[in-house]
Parts: sequence; C-alpha cells; structure tokens
Amino acid sequence: MQPTPDRPSAQPDERWRIRRTRDDLDRLGETESIFALSNGWLGWRGTLDEGAPVEMPGSYLNGLHERRALNYPEDGYAFPQLSDTVISAPNATLVRLWVDGEPLDLRTGTLLAHEQVLDLRAGVLERLTEWISPAGRGVRVRSTRLVSLPRRRIAAVDWTVEPLDGPVDVRISADLLANERVPERADDPRAASLIQDPLVAELHHVDDADGLLVHRTEHSGQRVAVAVAHRPTVPEHFASDGDATPDRIRLTLTGSLRPGEQVRLTRFAAYEWAPVDGSTAEELAGQVVAEADAARTVGFETLFAEQRAAFDEAWRTADVVLDGDEQLQLAIRFAMFHLIQAGRSDGDRTIPAKGLTGNGYDGHVLWDTEGYVLAALTYVAPEVVRSALRWRHRHLPQALDRAAELRLTGATFPWRTISGRECSGYWPAGTAALHVNADLADAVLRYAGATGDQDFLTGAGLDLLVATARLWHGFGHFTDDGVFHLVGVTGPDEYAALVDDNLFTNLMARRNLRGAADAVERYPEAGDRLGVDPAEVAGWRAAADAMAVPYDAKRGVHQQAAGFTARPEWDFAGTGDDDYPLLLHFPYLELYRHQVVKQADLVLAMLRCPGEFTAEEKAANFAYYEARTVRDSSLSAAPQGVLAAELGHLDLAYDLFAESVLQDLEDLGDKTGDGLHLASLGGAWLALVQGFGGLRDDRERLSFDPRLPRRIDRLAFSLRWHGHRLLVTLTADEARYELPDAEADAAMELWHHGEWVRVTADAPVRRPMPPLPDFGDEPPSPPGRRPARR
Amino acid sequence: MQPTPDRPSAQPDERWRIRRTRDDLDRLGETESIFALSNGWLGWRGTLDEGAPVEMPGSYLNGLHERRALNYPEDGYAFPQLSDTVISAPNATLVRLWVDGEPLDLRTGTLLAHEQVLDLRAGVLERLTEWISPAGRGVRVRSTRLVSLPRRRIAAVDWTVEPLDGPVDVRISADLLANERVPERADDPRAASLIQDPLVAELHHVDDADGLLVHRTEHSGQRVAVAVAHRPTVPEHFASDGDATPDRIRLTLTGSLRPGEQVRLTRFAAYEWAPVDGSTAEELAGQVVAEADAARTVGFETLFAEQRAAFDEAWRTADVVLDGDEQLQLAIRFAMFHLIQAGRSDGDRTIPAKGLTGNGYDGHVLWDTEGYVLAALTYVAPEVVRSALRWRHRHLPQALDRAAELRLTGATFPWRTISGRECSGYWPAGTAALHVNADLADAVLRYAGATGDQDFLTGAGLDLLVATARLWHGFGHFTDDGVFHLVGVTGPDEYAALVDDNLFTNLMARRNLRGAADAVERYPEAGDRLGVDPAEVAGWRAAADAMAVPYDAKRGVHQQAAGFTARPEWDFAGTGDDDYPLLLHFPYLELYRHQVVKQADLVLAMLRCPGEFTAEEKAANFAYYEARTVRDSSLSAAPQGVLAAELGHLDLAYDLFAESVLQDLEDLGDKTGDGLHLASLGGAWLALVQGFGGLRDDRERLSFDPRLPRRIDRLAFSLRWHGHRLLVTLTADEARYELPDAEADAAMELWHHGEWVRVTADAPVRRPMPPLPDFGDEPPSPPGRRPARR
Repeated sequence: MQPTPDRPSAQPDERWRIRRTRDDLDRLGETESIFALSNGWLGWRGTLDEGAPVEMPGSYLNGLHERRALNYPEDGYAFPQLSDTVISAPNATLVRLWVDGEPLDLRTGTLLAHEQVLDLRAGVLERLTEWISPAGRGVRVRSTRLVSLPRRRIAAVDWTVEPLDGPVDVRISADLLANERVPERADDPRAASLIQDPLVAELHHVDDADGLLVHRTEHSGQRVAVAVAHRPTVPEHFASDGDATPDRIRLTLTGSLRPGEQVRLTRFAAYEWAPVDGSTAEELAGQVVAEADAARTVGFETLFAEQRAAFDEAWRTADVVLDGDEQLQLAIRFAMFHLIQAGRSDGDRTIPAKGLTGNGYDGHVLWDTEGYVLAALTYVAPEVVRSALRWRHRHLPQALDRAAELRLTGATFPWRTISGRECSGYWPAGTAALHVNADLADAVLRYAGATGDQDFLTGAGLDLLVATARLWHGFGHFTDDGVFHLVGVTGPDEYAALVDDNLFTNLMARRNLRGAADAVERYPEAGDRLGVDPAEVAGWRAAADAMAVPYDAKRGVHQQAAGFTARPEWDFAGTGDDDYPLLLHFPYLELYRHQVVKQADLVLAMLRCPGEFTAEEKAANFAYYEARTVRDSSLSAAPQGVLAAELGHLDLAYDLFAESVLQDLEDLGDKTGDGLHLASLGGAWLALVQGFGGLRDDRERLSFDPRLPRRIDRLAFSLRWHGHRLLVTLTADEARYELPDAEADAAMELWHHGEWVRVTADAPVRRPMPPLPDFGDEPPSPPGRRPARR
Repeated sequence: MQPTPDRPSAQPDERWRIRRTRDDLDRLGETESIFALSNGWLGWRGTLDEGAPVEMPGSYLNGLHERRALNYPEDGYAFPQLSDTVISAPNATLVRLWVDGEPLDLRTGTLLAHEQVLDLRAGVLERLTEWISPAGRGVRVRSTRLVSLPRRRIAAVDWTVEPLDGPVDVRISADLLANERVPERADDPRAASLIQDPLVAELHHVDDADGLLVHRTEHSGQRVAVAVAHRPTVPEHFASDGDATPDRIRLTLTGSLRPGEQVRLTRFAAYEWAPVDGSTAEELAGQVVAEADAARTVGFETLFAEQRAAFDEAWRTADVVLDGDEQLQLAIRFAMFHLIQAGRSDGDRTIPAKGLTGNGYDGHVLWDTEGYVLAALTYVAPEVVRSALRWRHRHLPQALDRAAELRLTGATFPWRTISGRECSGYWPAGTAALHVNADLADAVLRYAGATGDQDFLTGAGLDLLVATARLWHGFGHFTDDGVFHLVGVTGPDEYAALVDDNLFTNLMARRNLRGAADAVERYPEAGDRLGVDPAEVAGWRAAADAMAVPYDAKRGVHQQAAGFTARPEWDFAGTGDDDYPLLLHFPYLELYRHQVVKQADLVLAMLRCPGEFTAEEKAANFAYYEARTVRDSSLSAAPQGVLAAELGHLDLAYDLFAESVLQDLEDLGDKTGDGLHLASLGGAWLALVQGFGGLRDDRERLSFDPRLPRRIDRLAFSLRWHGHRLLVTLTADEARYELPDAEADAAMELWHHGEWVRVTADAPVRRPMPPLPDFGDEPPSPPGRRPARR
C-alpha cells in the first residue's frame, strides 16, 4: 500500500501498523471497533467509507446519550427507573460510490485488493480497495480518515477514486446521516440497549458543498449539531449537487473518469453537543459551520501533520518496547494507541468502558475506568486522569443524593452511568458493588501520589475522599469483638454477590478511610471546609484499623469474603468447554454460592494493597484462587498476570499478559464488535509494568521489583512521576532507570528491589535484575482455563 | 333488612353476617374483596350490581390466565421470560337500572338506606338499597347473589326493583360484559400486572332473554365461554330486548312501575374454560348454554337451598366458637367462610394466594398455599388439600425441567405461578427461595399424617417427596467437619436473601429428607418405581442427620441464618412510623444486611419443627426475634401468635391472633382491595388451634397443650383426623375432647399435655387445663410494632 498522495513518503514501519484485509471481512464488527478513531470526545467506528457491509455504525460524542425507562418485572425501592444509553451522532464518514450505476459493495463483484490499516504512529486509518464491479469496471478507492487529537470537534476523511484501466462513469454520494439503523445484537445480557431513531430533527441545511444537521434527543435534553465542509477535486464536466433532508445531507458528484484521472473528495466534519437549554439550535449550528469551514481552510495535510505531532508527543511516554515477540509488540502499541485516544485533559471528561469505540454496556462508565484505565493513565497521561476524576467530582451531588436515597451516609457513586445517575438495572451486581467508591478514592490517591497535585488533592480530590470515607464509616459496624465489618456487599467477582467482608472491598475501604484521614490531617483547612473534625477522623482510623480481614487458618489462605472457603467447590469435572462463560449456562443461584470466581477479586486486592500480605500469603492465596478463577471477565487476566509475575510464575504471567493485550485484537471474548475493552488494554500495560516491571505505588513511593519473562529480550517503558519522565529498560541482566527529558539538575528517587536509588539527568542508573522468587511450580488453573501458552 | 321474598324467613343471626353500609362506600375495593363469593373454581368480587362505582371488577376462573413477557433491565440465565397473569372472565353480575332516565348511582341522588350483607351460613351476598334519584324518584333495589358451592360452573343473581312511593319509569340493563376496564393500581411492587382487553372475541349470541359469549386469550391458549339465562318477572306492558356485541350481551327491560309493583330479574350464569386445543368454541358454547338453562330450570330457590346445605355441611367442621369477643367471633367465621370458598375437592386444583377474590400477586399461587392455607385445611377439609397437592403433582414435570435448567437435581417448584411455570421476576426472592419445595413436602406429610391416605402417599405424594428430597441432597454439601450445609438460599423472611443455612430451610429440608426416606422404606415398591435404592435413602438420612443448625452460643439463641446475630442491628430509633412497611422506604441493600425481620422465619421453624428446640431455646429465640420482627408481612402474626401462646404470653398471642384474623376485615395492610390474604385467614385458624389449642402434629400424632387467653371464655373447634371429627372445647377450667358424629365403636387417641387420651363416641373426655408455662414478661416488639392491644 502506498501512502496517500501529497503526504511525505516513507517506508511504512509495520511495527506500528494494524492491518486487516479482505480475509477479515467476515469479522466486520470486530474490525470496526479495532479501527475506531477517537480523541476522547469524538469517536468514529472503523466502518467502511461506503457504509456497507457494516456490523454496527457509530459516531459517538462523549456524554451524548438518550434516556430510557427501566422496567422491572418486580420493582423495588430505589431501583433506578431511568437509564442513559449512548446514541450515535450523525455519521459523517460516509462516501458512497456507484460505478456505471453499480454500488461499490465488497460483497459483490471481484475484489482484487482490499486493506484497512491503522497507523498507530500517525493516528489515522487508511484504506485501499481495488474492485471490479459485477459489470466488469475496475476502480481503486483510497481513503485516509482521522479524528483530530488537538481539535476535539474535528474529524476528516480524504477519499479518492480512480479507474483501474478503462474509463468509468462514477457517482459519489457523500452523506451526513442521522438516525442510521443500528442492527440488534444477539440476546446477551451484556449487549447494549438500542434506541432506534433517537434524534429529533431541528435544522438541516445544504449550501453548495457544505451541509449541516441539528438534532435533539427526546428525553435527555441534549442537542447535537454536525457540519460538513467539502473540498472536492474533480475533472472537468463533473456535476455537483447538494441535497438535504431532516436526517441527511448529501453531496453528489457525477461524471466520467478516464484512466489517469481521479476524484478526490476531502471532507471536514465538525461536531458539537450541548444541553438544549444551554444554546439554541442556531447557535450550535453557527459554531459547527465555522469549525468545519476553519478545518477546511487549514486543510487535510495540516490536520494530518498536527495529528502526527500530537501522537509523537503522546508516544514519548506511552510507547512500550517489547523485543522478542513481534505480535505482542504490535499488540501493546495497539493497546496504548487506544488509551491515548480514550481520554482528554480539557474539561471534565471521563472514559466509558468501551471508550468511544462501540455501544457496549450502553456506553456506560463503570469501575473499569478508575480500576484499570486510570490506573495505567496515571503514569502515562496524568492530566487525563485529573480530568476524569474531576468528572466524578462534578457528579458528586448526585452521588450524595443517591446515598441519601439509599439511606446511607456519604456518597455512593453509580455502578454504571453516563450522566451521573445510577443506571444499573440489577442491584445485587450494581448498587451493592459499593467498592466502586473505594476504587474512585484509590484513583484519587494514586493520582495525587504520582503527581503531587496539591490543588486537586485539597479541592475536588478531598471532596471525593471525604464523601467516600463517610460512606464506609456509616455503612460498617463493629461486632462485640471490636472488629469492623462491611456486610452485604458485592465485590469485584461477579460470580458472587451480597457477601460479608469482601476482602477487596474491606482493604480498599481501609485505604479510603486512611487516605481521607491523612489528607484531612495534612490539609486541615480543607478538612474544615468539609466540616470534618478530629473526632470524625479518629472514627475513620478506628474503623480502618479494626477492618475485618477474613482468613481461613486451616487452609492457610485469605477468604475472598467471609465463609468463602467453606462454600461448595465448583464441579469443574462436570463443566464442559461449551459451558463457558458460565454466566450464560448457569444461574446466579449456582454461581454465587460456589467457590467459582469470575475474575480477580482477592488477587486484585493483593495487587492494590500489596502491603497487607506477606509474600507467603500471596503465594498461598494466588494458588488457591488461581485454581478457582475461570476468567469469564476481561478484567481478570491482567491482575492475575501481575501477581503471577510477582510470585515468579513468569510463563503464566506472560500468557496472562498476552490474553489481556490480545483481548480485542483476537476478539477472545467474542464481544469486541460492541467496542474495545479499554480496561483490558489498560490492564495489559499494568501487566507489563506492574507485573514484569514490578511497579508498586501503594506507599507514595515508586517501587520496582523487575523480572523478565524468557519470551522477551528487552522491555522498555516510560512513566510520569511528579513531572519527570522515567524511562525503565529491562533486559535479562539489568534494569536501567533514566530521565531522558530532564533538566540538568533534575533527580528522582525510587526503590529497586528494596534499595533506594537516585536517578539524575546525568546518566542512567543500572542495577542487576533481582533473583526470581521461588514459590514452586506454576499453580494449576481450572481445567481448560489456563491461558493459551505462547 | 328483610329476607328476600320467597325464601324461609327467620330472624337473621348477626353472629354470621358481615355488614357494610353507605358509610363504607369510601372503601369499595376492600368491600369488593371481603364480599367476594367463590366456590374454589369460579369467583365473583363483591361489586355492586350496577357495576359503578367500582374499585376493581373481577370474575375469576381457577386457572384462567393470560401470559405476558417479563423484560429485565439486565437479563440473566434462566430468568423467567414469561409470566402468567390472572384475567377476568366476562362479568355476569351486572344489572343496571335507570329511573326516569337517570342511572342508579350511589354517588348521586339521595341514599335513604344501603347495605350489603354477606351471610356466612347461607353462603350468599345480599343487598338492599333505597335511593331517591336526583329528579326525586324513589326505588328500592334488592339482590341476592350466590356462587354455587355444589355446581362449580354456576352463579346466580336474584334482583328486584320496586318504587318507594310514586310511579317510576325504569329501564333495566342486565349485561354480560367481557374486557371490562380494570383500573391501574398505585405504584407498588406488590400490585398486579394488568393486561387490558385480554380476551379475543370468538362467538356472541343472544336469543330472547339468554345470551352467550365465547372468547379466547391471545397467548396462553385458553378459551372461555359464559352463558346467561334469565327469568324476568315484570308487570304487563314491559318491553324486553336482547342485544349482543362481541364483548357484550344485554337484556333490556323497559316499563313503568306503580307502587306495589316490582321487577324481579333472576339471572343464571354458567362459565367454562378449556385449552383452545381441547374443545371448539361451539362445543364450549353448547356446554355453558345447557348449564345455564339447567340452572334456570332448577330455579334460584333450589340453588339457594343447595348452597345452604353445602355450607351447613362445611360448617360442621369449620365452625369455631369463640365466646367473649363478638368482633373476633365474627371475624374467625369470616375467615373460615373464605377458606371454605377457596378450595375444591373435584379435579386437581389449587388455591392462589388471594383465592378468587382479587388479582393481587397477579393471581399467583405462592408458598402461602402449602404453608398456611393447606396447613389449616388439612384439618378442616382434607379432600381440598389432596386436590391442591395433586395440582402440584400435575406440574411435577415442569418442576423437574426447571431444576434441570437451573442445573440442580430433583425438582424445583415455582415461587409463583398459575400454569406451573416459574413467574417470579426477582430471583433472589423467587428462585432462591427453595424452601417452597420443603413446604410442599411438609404439606404432603401433614396431609398423609392426618388422613392416612395411603393411595396418595404411595403415588403422587411419594413422587413429590422423592423429587424434593433429591433437590436438597444435590443442593447441599458437607464441609470438612461433617456438617451438611445449604448455602446461598432465601428463607421465608423477605428482608433477607441469599443467606447460608437458613434455619427454617435447613430444618424443613431435614423433615423433607427424612419424610421421603421413611415413606420409601415403608413402601419399598413405590420407591422402586422411582428408582430409589437404599444407598440413596442412606444419603438422604446422612444429609438430614448432619444438617447445619446455626446457633449463637454467646447470645444463647439460634440464628435465622449463619451469621445473622453478628449482623448490624436495625436503627429502630431512627425509623419513623411512616417508614413502614420498610420495603417501601429502604433498599434491599439495607434490609438484607441488618438484623431486621419482615416476617416469622426462625419462629415459623419453631412452629413447624417443634421437636427441634427445647422450651428454653424457644423462649430465648422468641424473645430475640420478636424484638427484631416488624411484621411487614401478613404471614407473620399467626405463627408469632402460636409461639407466643406456647410460651405463655397469652395477651400477645391473642393480639397477634386478632391481627391475623382482622387483616382483611380491617384492611390492616391497605392491600385488601387487591384480594383477601388467604394465608392470614388460614393463619388465624392456626393461631387459635395451634396457639390456644396447642395442636402439634410433627410426629404423626395429634397432640394438644391448650391454654386459654383471658379475653375468651370458651373456644371450640373441630378437626378431622383419620376420618373422625374431633370436637375440642376449651374453657378456663378444662379441655373437652369428643367425637360428636362418630359411630358407636369409634375411638381415637391423642395427647393432652403429655398424657395419652383415648376419645370414644360414648362421652367426652375432660381434662383440666394445664398450667401456663412461665417464661417471664412478654418480650418487647420493635418500637411501635407491637400488635394493637385488645
């Protein structure tokens, strides 16, 4: 594939390119997600320019959604009655082509060549197709698509068609299309709730080659405007026509192409949405028309160059070098590419579980964001984490109200949401999963620890820490023996619910309580602002100190929750390969009461709160839970991989890392078509950096305990820490720490395998790789559930 | 009020009559339920003849229902996708009147007199209204309505109108009306799901004074036919006209009445329903037309006499004499009246939670039936119990399939159903409440114990016992210490869910396992038929013997479920009177995890399995749980009352009995409009007979330990036991046992306060009342939740 004309030519570097060809046309939905472009505010799925065949079209704006009623067969007090559902903004990617009256459709005619290539370094999606129509006319179609990282409202397509040999009559229809039909997905509880025709037309306008649509939603009170500006380059005698209906703007170009001629159509789209009571349709229209026009004036080449520059800057920190495994080298770059795309630092914006790559989980934000995505981005793009946590803070009033409705103290943040309201329709796995609040507090503490951002910690951060600490303090209770318990909650493992003293929740709540107490004591004026007095802080500390930590002394393992190890064992021998994922073949009744674990829960606790366990406890716990964890969740492989690495089971760790990083590229869960698993992609970075790098951050210091799996020769990654970029390079023999961008007098301290190390701008610090811990053989996974061996 | 003309006159006995007057017109829904007439197959709500004002019209046929889809905000494996909902058959009670063109409507004009009277002994509903129209014309309207106990398809209305003083022009419209509008009830999770216009018209026909409607349901595959035959008695010159539309048959009588004249319209209605593939519309039509005609030929007076005779026979066993409290004397007769009406012995039919008195709980059968209604009827009408248990047996194949779908062994019967399918839309309180299976087995054992019905016990009964025993054996597991556990279930208390070793469930499962084992060993051939071998029986016994019985040694009380007594206490001080029922003001999250009990659970276990507890344990347990039980369920007062009586807290016991027996007459739960609480009415009998009579039956012998509350001078009740009718009469001084109907050589043995007593036909056996146990003062209830003192 040749680079698009008019742009600098260079040999493409295949270590930065994801390629799909005509052999992949049977997995379009997956491809559309993988090739989704986004800037954290605007997202385009990687659909074909001609719009068909298509699995699921989607153009998403962060926050744009419709509201729908939740109806329960048996309702209950405080069951959420309304839910947010992501909807698609008008689709501005469409460029349809007719060749001698026959539509370009890859399912017809003869496909000489076809590929889509995601250029991770340039941040664009390229496409080349050579096609002979059923009537025998050949054309070559190319396009380059980008969603601008620096300009949040702007996306653009640069599209060309030329005859392959003989002359052809062509008609080109460039559409901006609202309320595009989205096919229903199979009956799966994890799929999205579709709302057909969510947009109500308000304005439509076409003027020469430019067009505009303004719509509003019926229930959520939002207005969305999209303008397209075109720059067509056509041979003489081509006809051009603009046409508008309330849901469609169409630019049509018609004419004949001789060999050597081409049509090039560059389209600039500008999007905006706002609350209906925020600005009028005309105001919003004026804004996007000006933006689209400005983008056209700037031109595609400039947008392309800006994009590359923005990605270059992002990759400085985000890139990971993994020598020795080409597939996973590309896969981790793919993961980091989508993490770069997922968030923004401007405004208070968060990152939904699927980013802006699909409508899975209704476009909701879940704990995946704080627990996995922000956990990685804290060290890669901390400004994005600040933005996402400020988004939570913006919704603190709703969380306080929700806690009051639930008759709880403090705040309870939603299990799933777009607008801040609780949208979970199954309370045992939603409302009861209170750990989401501790995950949020944990993200605040991690961000504050990594950046030293005092403004945030004394402002929004403290508000969040205090409101969540108040939840735990009011929710828990002391038993006669002086132990503090959190009963009747649901932890991370979704194959359990409404348990007592879920270890993860308890330890994270302890961290939350102590973190809030520390912050208030460190910034007493900020504490005064929130009415926190020393007695309240003392109460938090007392609860944290007395927190129940369920342990089975006989088996020598911690319990995922009180009584867990006394529950009946799962009948793995009687469970067939087709019975996975178990949730589609067994009732919750059976899943909840057995010792079967969907996803890392106690293992995640050992990752988040490493200081709460001895190495021997970790080894025993890991072996016990590994044998019972089926990984029916994409959230599981990464933390399991980290602990496997810590315990010296490096082959298992590497295979778990591979599962995490290939989740979407290989569509391991058969769900990638609904959107990417950002938590799994973030988890992949954690599996590398926390697993093989041995990064731990629970004590406000950066600590490494590196170990390298035999499959890779070199692992290099960067971290941001208090304004520094630390580059860590691991080989079989040594760990190297350096500050490549630092001022001359810069320095930072870190722990390497129990030793304080001071890194300066002068020269790298090199240390030998520590010896591997020996906890015996790799512990067995459930039958058939070990990750694939690499 | 005078008796209806043409029927034997006697001074009405007010101890057998429930009366409502114009002062009660503001609680119509309640009145409609209280005055509902039923024969266990056909039920008419006690609506006014003229059909308005009305709270909820309803004409129910046992088993007639429509099916609807259940939609979940978040679906799950084996969540029921379809639910049954009771629907109303065409309404044949309607007789509308226009007086000089103005409709009789009690909300207009002047009401000189109005009353409806339910005659408990005659089994009819009478009505007398004297009304002056807005234009000043006075009429007297009377009616007598019956639903025939001996003729299941037949109901009849005898209606008259006469001028009060001057002449009046009248128009009388006697309607048979399908798809009558049912008003939506308030937003309450416990209300019914309404299906508007559930019936699809198939046939309609009118012929002189007779008419017919045949309809079918859209989804449940049922056909319902209703025929009406009239006998009008009118003065000369009255015009008569019949009219039919697909949903309405109307007979209209028009003419003038002078003082001393009257119109009498007697209507005979015949109902039938069948599966659509069972018989054609024409066949069903022919059947009901013939039945209605036959009823007319027999005449209203004969139907009335048959009704009285059938009730006389039923009352011989069912009557309870309670001297000293007129209100409760009438109330317990009211309760027994509805129990008599609720069931039938012909065919395999069960009794829904509301009987055929309303559409509450969608007309579903719940565990109320076996746990409360059949528990009483076993001794009052055992043939009805046999029929209801055979109905369960008819649905055993569905219960086996459901268990397989849930990947459990044996059978799991539905938590709520009409057609046998599980219709619960909230699995933690439905599917997980496996105790419904043990309740069923318990009802089998109780019925077999009280009747010695060997045919049943070796046939359907054994099938039920074995299928449920197999459930428990497969569901439970042994821990290392050899204890058998049932974890992750929901017990009777609906303010807890998904608990481990719910004591009620465990003890009832133990009874189930042992009952099945005993029956198989007693009837080995029947066991062979089911493939039960000695090893399986040994497994059941081992599980039963090792069953976990959670006990808190420190507090000296049993635990409702493992860990219950360590859970946080409910903040009763912070709970306002308006916060009850708690389920409408607190989330399940809070209810489930606290020591707050909706309804007798452990206390019910002490009633059902009395031999599992010492008297001291019972006293300690009762006091502990009484202080935490809020009685937000109508199922609670009765079992609490029984235990209170057993422990000598007779005032509390009497007040709990009163709450149970007045549940509907006083509409204590504000839900009587949806239908009567049959379990509470059955519970009232249990509160008397098990509470004050001290009846216990868990060891296949009849045992009494009587004690009389000071509010009553005499308590007399009858019991059927192995073909005998035992009459028990308690006074302050003595207990008298006799066999009033027995053959000369008949005899039966029973236990009186630990002494074997032989009762013969010759003479009553008299024994002094035992001394009251002394367990100290009455234990406190939660603040504000003690039952009203009488």
